[in-house]
Amino acid sequence: MDTFTPTPVSKVKRHPERGSYDRETVYAILDAGLVCHVGYALGDQPLVTPTIHWREGDRLYWHGSAASRMLETLAAGVKACVTVTIVDGLVVARSAFTHSMNYRSAMVFGTARPIEGREAKLQALQHLIDRLYPGRWATLREPLEKEIKATSVISMPIEEASAKIRKGPPLDYDYDMGEQVWAGTIPLTLVPGAPTADPKLDPKIAVPEMLARYALPR
Amino acid sequence: MDTFTPTPVSKVKRHPERGSYDRETVYAILDAGLVCHVGYALGDQPLVTPTIHWREGDRLYWHGSAASRMLETLAAGVKACVTVTIVDGLVVARSAFTHSMNYRSAMVFGTARPIEGREAKLQALQHLIDRLYPGRWATLREPLEKEIKATSVISMPIEEASAKIRKGPPLDYDYDMGEQVWAGTIPLTLVPGAPTADPKLDPKIAVPEMLARYALPR
Repeated sequence: MDTFTPTPVSKVKRHPERGSYDRETVYAILDAGLVCHVGYALGDQPLVTPTIHWREGDRLYWHGSAASRMLETLAAGVKACVTVTIVDGLVVARSAFTHSMNYRSAMVFGTARPIEGREAKLQALQHLIDRLYPGRWATLREPLEKEIKATSVISMPIEEASAKIRKGPPLDYDYDMGEQVWAGTIPLTLVPGAPTADPKLDPKIAVPEMLARYALPR
Repeated sequence: MDTFTPTPVSKVKRHPERGSYDRETVYAILDAGLVCHVGYALGDQPLVTPTIHWREGDRLYWHGSAASRMLETLAAGVKACVTVTIVDGLVVARSAFTHSMNYRSAMVFGTARPIEGREAKLQALQHLIDRLYPGRWATLREPLEKEIKATSVISMPIEEASAKIRKGPPLDYDYDMGEQVWAGTIPLTLVPGAPTADPKLDPKIAVPEMLARYALPR
């Protein structure tokens, strides 16, 4: 099995039984999450920026305006920690301290840098569009040079990573089994609604099937 | 209007028109989010840990095992950045670069420390339970001393903060209005499903109305 080697940075200390260093497990969470939280330090000040991400092989990507502070900082090769969290449900237990949540989270570590070169940038952005909307890139006009220039794409080799997953019912103590309170789980799912056309859209343009029955990445 | 004063750390640089420093706006996002991402640095290594949070007045709280690395580090008074992000929808546009997401995010900054004292800890944890499950704390048995000791509660005064919000239709360029592709938004909502009883639950205990028709915090 292809696994990451945990170090003091990536080792899951709290509830270690929920930790995994399996590459496939980590990547499945990265791919299923819509947004990530990128952590980096400006001096002694940590910053956590939410952004959309995507993955190709053993690299994680995100993007932003070429002017953004996060990307300016990372351009210098600052260490980053990128965390993706998917909340799957609430765990309602028999005692206050055993209440919990069901979730999947992945933390990945590496040193991120902007990718250089027009073609590499374009290919990466195509992956972003097609991850969320399979096949859509091919239906769009060619990007303009000024758009490509104004956007930085950041690439980070996934050097180290861990996943943490909780699922299933509450884990109450045997001595609490007589408590007369309900216990169980409430699933939480991110659900796409019906597409709303841009008020400026030509009404002759129909919503494509892929968007009408939109399925989030898994 | 009660607003935070932006500094180079909290100022929204990318899409500044989406930024807000209004205390009420920031707090509404903190209160509506189920989980936060806590960023802090261990030396030059940033770490981003997802956890559940709650707010009372101008303080943000989160908790964890007294043994957790994050809380050990923060006990020494390390600076933290806590970000809450709520994804509200996908923005499908007429060109690749105008695709976006609708979201609400809040970044708050401060120096976090564990709270001391049995009563202060208990009161804070009651707020956590009752934020998610109004009235539930009163239905649960008294916490045990060993449970209280094993759990750290972290409190951070919200010293500085910003919000960033995108909503509404795609913002395409006038010169793209003739593109023959669909454009609009797809709303995304976190939806609670039907409660699932713990397999070990006494079948005579009914699910309370508050959980049967569970409404996420707003």
